[in-house]
Amino acid sequence: MHVDLGTVLGTTPGLSEHTLEQLNGVVGQAHERIQHGRANSEHGYTALSLPDTVNLDQIRSAVSRFESPQAIVVIGIGGSALGAATLVDALGGEDDPPVHVLDNVDPDSIQSTLSQLPLQETVVTVISRSGQTAETLSNFLVVREAMKMADIDWTQQTLVITGESGNLSDLATQYSLPQLSVPDGVPGRFSVLSAVGLTIAAFLDIDVDAVVKGAADGEADLSGSIFETPGYAYGAVAHALNQRGAKINVMMPYAERLETFGEWFRQLWAESLAKDGVGQTPATALGATDQHSQLQLYRAGPPDKLVTLVRPATRDDIDIPETALAGLGYLNGESLGSLLDAEFEATEASLFAADVPAIRIEIDALDPHSLGRLLYEMEAACILFGELANISTFTQPAVEWGKRATRGLLRDASTAETETITDKQTFIIEWTASGSSPEALGLFCL
Amino acid sequence: MHVDLGTVLGTTPGLSEHTLEQLNGVVGQAHERIQHGRANSEHGYTALSLPDTVNLDQIRSAVSRFESPQAIVVIGIGGSALGAATLVDALGGEDDPPVHVLDNVDPDSIQSTLSQLPLQETVVTVISRSGQTAETLSNFLVVREAMKMADIDWTQQTLVITGESGNLSDLATQYSLPQLSVPDGVPGRFSVLSAVGLTIAAFLDIDVDAVVKGAADGEADLSGSIFETPGYAYGAVAHALNQRGAKINVMMPYAERLETFGEWFRQLWAESLAKDGVGQTPATALGATDQHSQLQLYRAGPPDKLVTLVRPATRDDIDIPETALAGLGYLNGESLGSLLDAEFEATEASLFAADVPAIRIEIDALDPHSLGRLLYEMEAACILFGELANISTFTQPAVEWGKRATRGLLRDASTAETETITDKQTFIIEWTASGSSPEALGLFCL
Repeated sequence: MHVDLGTVLGTTPGLSEHTLEQLNGVVGQAHERIQHGRANSEHGYTALSLPDTVNLDQIRSAVSRFESPQAIVVIGIGGSALGAATLVDALGGEDDPPVHVLDNVDPDSIQSTLSQLPLQETVVTVISRSGQTAETLSNFLVVREAMKMADIDWTQQTLVITGESGNLSDLATQYSLPQLSVPDGVPGRFSVLSAVGLTIAAFLDIDVDAVVKGAADGEADLSGSIFETPGYAYGAVAHALNQRGAKINVMMPYAERLETFGEWFRQLWAESLAKDGVGQTPATALGATDQHSQLQLYRAGPPDKLVTLVRPATRDDIDIPETALAGLGYLNGESLGSLLDAEFEATEASLFAADVPAIRIEIDALDPHSLGRLLYEMEAACILFGELANISTFTQPAVEWGKRATRGLLRDASTAETETITDKQTFIIEWTASGSSPEALGLFCL
Repeated sequence: MHVDLGTVLGTTPGLSEHTLEQLNGVVGQAHERIQHGRANSEHGYTALSLPDTVNLDQIRSAVSRFESPQAIVVIGIGGSALGAATLVDALGGEDDPPVHVLDNVDPDSIQSTLSQLPLQETVVTVISRSGQTAETLSNFLVVREAMKMADIDWTQQTLVITGESGNLSDLATQYSLPQLSVPDGVPGRFSVLSAVGLTIAAFLDIDVDAVVKGAADGEADLSGSIFETPGYAYGAVAHALNQRGAKINVMMPYAERLETFGEWFRQLWAESLAKDGVGQTPATALGATDQHSQLQLYRAGPPDKLVTLVRPATRDDIDIPETALAGLGYLNGESLGSLLDAEFEATEASLFAADVPAIRIEIDALDPHSLGRLLYEMEAACILFGELANISTFTQPAVEWGKRATRGLLRDASTAETETITDKQTFIIEWTASGSSPEALGLFCL
């Protein structure tokens, strides 16, 4: 529903109204650059056109091949997992089949998930643009093997979301698996409004039309003025505050269902904006819980933070029963929701009182339309931030080194990356199970 | 098992071996201060003596009053929830009764939990030192009401962990509820090795004796030398790196079962060390998942980070089935565990190659002894950091403002805090459900 910059205008770091006007001047140019990128289907910018280009009928058709699954497994990592998880956690219903996201290669947790699954009635959705993502393909091989061992025809229970070519696309052709496309020109972290994010939502009772409509409303409102475009207002102000020392952006929703949205935002912000030694470090927190964990830090720690507070304007509620307990009279007549809202406002004010800038984002409700709009506005915010800071928003070159190193290690190859590993210096302070003979092993090469 | 400072010795920010020696000199003094605090049972320092003072028989006796519960509800927030959750998530077994932690006042999630619970066979543990924590008591009143509505005698299914006096203590006396004590002089975030953290573990099949033994081994190894005390080595180096610009400490375990440990660490570090505008901002991440979300930031973003990598040296494993898929031949003969370990080493090396300091912590296994030791060493690390940086480690004054504001708001009182809220300036950029008429509402007072 709205972005409120009120407290930012009175804090240090903070902005003046004059600065907002100045910012607005450069936002006009950045907006033109963004619109130009969209018009020419340039890599990344095209993400902002997904509300026009996503094919919901195709998604529904693929999903309809599977009749009432009792569980859904999503195998993907990073942008291939977080968008779907965000929608499911925010909008899923209690009667929906459980969704298990396998986004790690921890044998312990994979084993635990496999042991819980009604494999015979489980749909597996495997998502990887390249069809070569090590974690995703490894998990897929493990789950497929478990199905084979249980005499289940895995080809009847597997849906593939991948690029035009590669292993997964070949596999889909070979076994006639239903297949959906990862859209061209859209980095994974911007793909929630495509088949990558919407397919799992479509398996549940989530109104994906409304999600896309919410995003389309955001698209329709994009303009060269931060005073008319909430996402741009957020992105421009986050950028300006970063320049003024707010190096950390804490995303703190006051709704447990938005906790995964925080994770999604954290990837969007980190991978997009951290380049060449600059960027703004995202952090996640959850209200009201983390008032009892992180608020001391935000108020009294280093003055390097912007806190983004998000809440739905309305929610279902539960009354707090009347109590005669000492010191708790102020809770009489209240509800959990009114307590949570009071804490939201108190936290915002307590940040202001400590001179910490906070931006408030309120959405109408935790409904599909509002979620679609929120996700779209945050993507627009991120892209605008990248433009204003001259950042290459749509690449993630720094993660390739580790992927090469992993492959080199497992292949026993000697490469520049694996040599860094074998040449690693260690300086070990040992603790022993018995607690008997601690020893510093000193510096040596492994 | 060990802390490895190897990469810290070759990065910028980083340390030289000479600096380590210098650090070691002041650590001796800090250790004496800590030992003095412990000997005199000073507030906070006494947390490091919990392995000697915790009464496991008392905990077991309280727990034994409840016969094979089918579910356990923990009602607490911050330090009254995170320690228990850390132990349960790290060490709980698949056949243990599910543990639901109510550490927020989100009506939606409380409703969802209540609807899943077999209330008749659920044990409720309510934890609050003061007996007045708004969130905890509100949730308790709601859960108790649900039990009453279901004709359940809540007094037979409720365990209380609280201070010497106050609402919960009075309630326990009035209704003859089993009661355990929050230890004196131990801030909530340091209370995992007391009844606050261990009681829920004792409800499951977790070997709490081994947890305490692990911590006791850490206690026995405390010394004035960082070369003999892994926790001190970690704390001293984290402090020195913070001085050199590593303002953010990313805690990144490579084990899903340690994700909650990361949350526990985040509170420990934030509330203890963020005072007077200083401190080191903790952040959490999960390996290998967040390589696909945060590694770009750690390697190529602002050079203000220390990354702490944690893993168990051994774990149960799952083989990756052989595959002929293109580009994945290097996975043949590997396991999920070996892939995860290769990614761990590759990430450490990739940070080093990008000049980002990383500290490696390896524990023997995800077992009770190792966990107890890890928790103890991190508490010692935190306390040492506080000594070296002249920080008041055991207070959290900055969170009181918001609590007063919340009470004031709900009581409709006019106080300094509520006036900050009513005087709040807003500067709203509106988005509308229809997408039709965005408008900036400008600056005004609510």
